Amino acid sequence: MTTFSQKSSFIIWALIISPSVSATRASKFQAEKPCKRMVLYYHDKLFDGTEKDKANATSVTAANASKLSDTNFGMLVVFNDPITIDDKFHSPPVARAQGFYFYDRKDTYTAWFAYTLVFNSSEHKGTLNIMGADLMTEKTRDLSVVGGTGDFFMARGIATFQTDTFQGSYYFRLKMDIKLYECY
Amino acid sequence: MTTFSQKSSFIIWALIISPSVSATRASKFQAEKPCKRMVLYYHDKLFDGTEKDKANATSVTAANASKLSDTNFGMLVVFNDPITIDDKFHSPPVARAQGFYFYDRKDTYTAWFAYTLVFNSSEHKGTLNIMGADLMTEKTRDLSVVGGTGDFFMARGIATFQTDTFQGSYYFRLKMDIKLYECY
Amino acid sequence: MTTFSQKSSFIIWALIISPSVSATRASKFQAEKPCKRMVLYYHDKLFDGTEKDKANATSVTAANASKLSDTNFGMLVVFNDPITIDDKFHSPPVARAQGFYFYDRKDTYTAWFAYTLVFNSSEHKGTLNIMGADLMTEKTRDLSVVGGTGDFFMARGIATFQTDTFQGSYYFRLKMDIKLYECY
Repeated sequence: MTTFSQKSSFIIWALIISPSVSATRASKFQAEKPCKRMVLYYHDKLFDGTEKDKANATSVTAANASKLSDTNFGMLVVFNDPITIDDKFHSPPVARAQGFYFYDRKDTYTAWFAYTLVFNSSEHKGTLNIMGADLMTEKTRDLSVVGGTGDFFMARGIATFQTDTFQGSYYFRLKMDIKLYECY
Repeated sequence: MTTFSQKSSFIIWALIISPSVSATRASKFQAEKPCKRMVLYYHDKLFDGTEKDKANATSVTAANASKLSDTNFGMLVVFNDPITIDDKFHSPPVARAQGFYFYDRKDTYTAWFAYTLVFNSSEHKGTLNIMGADLMTEKTRDLSVVGGTGDFFMARGIATFQTDTFQGSYYFRLKMDIKLYECY
Repeated sequence: MTTFSQKSSFIIWALIISPSVSATRASKFQAEKPCKRMVLYYHDKLFDGTEKDKANATSVTAANASKLSDTNFGMLVVFNDPITIDDKFHSPPVARAQGFYFYDRKDTYTAWFAYTLVFNSSEHKGTLNIMGADLMTEKTRDLSVVGGTGDFFMARGIATFQTDTFQGSYYFRLKMDIKLYECY
């Protein structure tokens, strides 16, 4: 009886403190352990104003660059860009990225993005909403996945950008490493 | 004693596994069980540039549509729109929606929204911050409620849009079904 | 034996209900108990178009005000503003605020902000993503911290704005009281 009681006391003590510990652990995210991860490519073909570019163009300038600098400060672009799983512009898109970016630095290029990844495939239906600074001079930079719908209901996470290539001002490609830490 | 010990063992085993299960359950949201729900109507009366429209207009074009297509691609509108609990434009507003949208598709109309619902009534004081794609060709579409303040402190959820009516380019009404899954 | 069993029953009953209570408590945020707090000053020096302002200017007008009113309705500004820990424009910045605001009211001034606080100092590396209405006529107003990266991985919280000073249309300073309730 005493033996049982002692063992039992320890177990009961452990149980008394365990709920809060478990709850804390359950709500704590670890950067290296996303619950969902997708590596995607984003292609932005800015409309150059010519008739023959209309078929290919995926984005337009909504506000022109200011005269403050020669780094496009203030230029705002609205996009509806294909998202592919490899780096080919003409691969079948697995999603669209709908949103905007603008340039926001005087002495070099940096940008700021807010957009929605719209998935409508056999694999995924739903959206992810993303915003943050694209510090283009950094090798990688992190934006926030601030919400999701459909298959990504209530998701949160990090979207890591990496410049994959660019051709002048009219085409660039980003590698987007999407890591979700809240999945439901 | 043995009988008690056996029963007790089962209960203690159940308790050992229950905390993590409970924590998971507590943090898991169910789409059909929001902790708060509000069905609201959003009225957007775009300024047509005339003197007599100044009293009624609730939004303005900040950037004009591009020449890429005839679907307003790139047109950006800033709004301060009344929110009502029925579909009448002149009903007393229960909130204001302050934010912007832009059109972002070549072959049909889709838009992208980011805005704040500002409540300042006897029933609610506070804000909800919302962003996402408005895929206008879908019957309903989901945006993310990414944060809240005041009565909606730290809220998150889903805002489901449904086009209620539109009259040309200068008036449209959306039904916004706001479902919060995090309420504090 | 009976005595132990009775006490034990009570404890076990308490344990059975405790996990969900604990989980609820652990996920509930209290407005007065942020896990991280920073009081920062934001300086916005809008480019006036002159050559001599180019060195000081930190923001540019991307879209001009509409003719709907004389309160800048529709005017959209892109900024890359220094963040300091005191109210001096020329103090060494501890972060940059990169984003945009626009004015969105007919009868007085209100604005809407979305931006990223970019920290790159010995103390903090990472970003906070913030959006919401800046109801300028209120003494204080709350925006949402909707995500974070780096040192602020997956953060959420509230950013309380207070107008500290303004000089005409071309300089204003905000006190930003950043309170995080999710820290990892």
